[in-house]
Amino acid sequence: MTPARNRQFRLKSRPQGRISADHFDFCQEAPPEPGEGQARVRVLYLSLDPTNRIWMSDMDQYMPPVAIGEVMRGGGIGVVEASRSSRYREGDLVTGLTGWQDYCLADEGENAMSVLPEGLPVSLPTMLGACGMTGITAYFGLLDLGRPQAGETVVVSAAAGAVGSVVGQIAKIQGCRAVGIAGGPDKCRYLVEELGFDAAVDYKSADWQEQLAAATPDGIDVNFENVGGEIMEAVMRRMNLFSRMPLCGMISGYNQQEPMRGDFSPILMRRIDVRGFIVMDFLDRYAEAAAQLAQWVMEGRIKHRETIVEGLEQAPEAVNMLFDGGNVGKLVVKVSEA
Amino acid sequence: MTPARNRQFRLKSRPQGRISADHFDFCQEAPPEPGEGQARVRVLYLSLDPTNRIWMSDMDQYMPPVAIGEVMRGGGIGVVEASRSSRYREGDLVTGLTGWQDYCLADEGENAMSVLPEGLPVSLPTMLGACGMTGITAYFGLLDLGRPQAGETVVVSAAAGAVGSVVGQIAKIQGCRAVGIAGGPDKCRYLVEELGFDAAVDYKSADWQEQLAAATPDGIDVNFENVGGEIMEAVMRRMNLFSRMPLCGMISGYNQQEPMRGDFSPILMRRIDVRGFIVMDFLDRYAEAAAQLAQWVMEGRIKHRETIVEGLEQAPEAVNMLFDGGNVGKLVVKVSEA
Repeated sequence: MTPARNRQFRLKSRPQGRISADHFDFCQEAPPEPGEGQARVRVLYLSLDPTNRIWMSDMDQYMPPVAIGEVMRGGGIGVVEASRSSRYREGDLVTGLTGWQDYCLADEGENAMSVLPEGLPVSLPTMLGACGMTGITAYFGLLDLGRPQAGETVVVSAAAGAVGSVVGQIAKIQGCRAVGIAGGPDKCRYLVEELGFDAAVDYKSADWQEQLAAATPDGIDVNFENVGGEIMEAVMRRMNLFSRMPLCGMISGYNQQEPMRGDFSPILMRRIDVRGFIVMDFLDRYAEAAAQLAQWVMEGRIKHRETIVEGLEQAPEAVNMLFDGGNVGKLVVKVSEA
Repeated sequence: MTPARNRQFRLKSRPQGRISADHFDFCQEAPPEPGEGQARVRVLYLSLDPTNRIWMSDMDQYMPPVAIGEVMRGGGIGVVEASRSSRYREGDLVTGLTGWQDYCLADEGENAMSVLPEGLPVSLPTMLGACGMTGITAYFGLLDLGRPQAGETVVVSAAAGAVGSVVGQIAKIQGCRAVGIAGGPDKCRYLVEELGFDAAVDYKSADWQEQLAAATPDGIDVNFENVGGEIMEAVMRRMNLFSRMPLCGMISGYNQQEPMRGDFSPILMRRIDVRGFIVMDFLDRYAEAAAQLAQWVMEGRIKHRETIVEGLEQAPEAVNMLFDGGNVGKLVVKVSEA
């Protein structure tokens, strides 16, 4: 049976600053009929990520921006409802770029999606978070680019977020001192008391720079950078000789119209290795990361939370939580029942 | 015989902006008498480098700043005139941190200097330039951090300077397209016609950004960065995915009082590897670089020029040439006759 409607967010205008529903047409069309080699996927959960904000803009970016009129790009998990491909069976859970809509088509080429194994040991939101793309981002950024050694100090910004929370916990598994920067006492307590960070810095408090200094008495060997701006500069001023800085994001700049500038002189004077990366750069090694992350999660060595927003119609407003600090852990939108 | 006087530039105040003789006390004292394990060195040539400007300031830097009242730090070449060390013989040519003065003491510890081999195949200024510290800087920065592959495009700023001119020529030896950025048509002609760069961009012309685009039709794979600021940002906007950026200097910022900011977003979006370095990081491999550079120079594959300023008393004003573009190739001060 073909379902009745496919609601879609199509980009109407590029946001300047905060995102609202007005930047999208929330339209309906008939759900797609799979052609040969395709499957129709009902979306269960959407992953909301800072990169959604990048894709809405026309800033210099690593994929083409979403075109005006196009369905908003986004990752998610869905269930196959109808298939004309041997790759997908009805009932399969799949993950990939579903877009902000009720239904999408998976195919065997450009829009191929990954079929999740049966009997998943974790929830679907976790499969988008600690055991999914954001966990994998933390894994490769920290281990491959940050190259932390036992006893070193690792600082991560947006530390209560989906990526940052995993970064700090992997740092602890590696025997490092893990310091998280987050907004507000609740998040800071969460980092230290629940996730086992050694220290947390509340960037919303007046003395956050002093907190940072106190939390990093031996300087900083790895800065896993998620936010950019003033926080990035303060961290860089405390980085050690030959330290590493995986540059995962600069979320503080995504709502601005100006270039995302920062002071380059510590890079020179401290001989920092700054490396930009996108999780897709490690595509051929996802299985390694996913297996290790799942093991750590099952062992309780990586704890995680998800912030679940109910209803596709909430997606545009919900993205702002990533910028306002409204979520803890992975932010997902529940689109339909599994 | 002990010579009559040792003229010394002692730092009096930290320059804000342009350097002048007023920032120093030009004093005289008796030349130093070598103690046990020491040698008195008469300075022949001083090396003038952008790093002199850094050392005069109290900006965050990789060695302690020169203290007020201290003899200005600087590299140079001298001849041993009196020795109480088995390491140095009278008549030996030595290189190291001589300071801005007529005479210095070499010792066997912190102020040890390197004894140059007899029968040098190149001039002493060249031993400070293409075959010395600046050549070695170019060598490791480009080859170890830039990792250029044949067919790739290498861009270097301050390309007619001591480091930049060698970077472009090593890039050519590696089979790369070498593009230099320099100020004025004379320097640009020098790069292309004498040094064999594939293209030069005159940053003093109104259309320099168009020149840069035309000179790098396939984008930029390695940016050997010497200047920072607006030029760095323009180059970074043309850098390719997974390109490399050895950060050797940001000379455009050394006379400013502000942080040396630049746009970080290309690092993220293009996954650039930005690596700050100082030639001293490669201390244990100097011999490798020096031997290779000497061979290339002897074979005529690395051409070089030196700009020689006569007289120690000229040193403070002469440093400004590095910032005004007054020199071509290595800038040295001739202090006394060999």
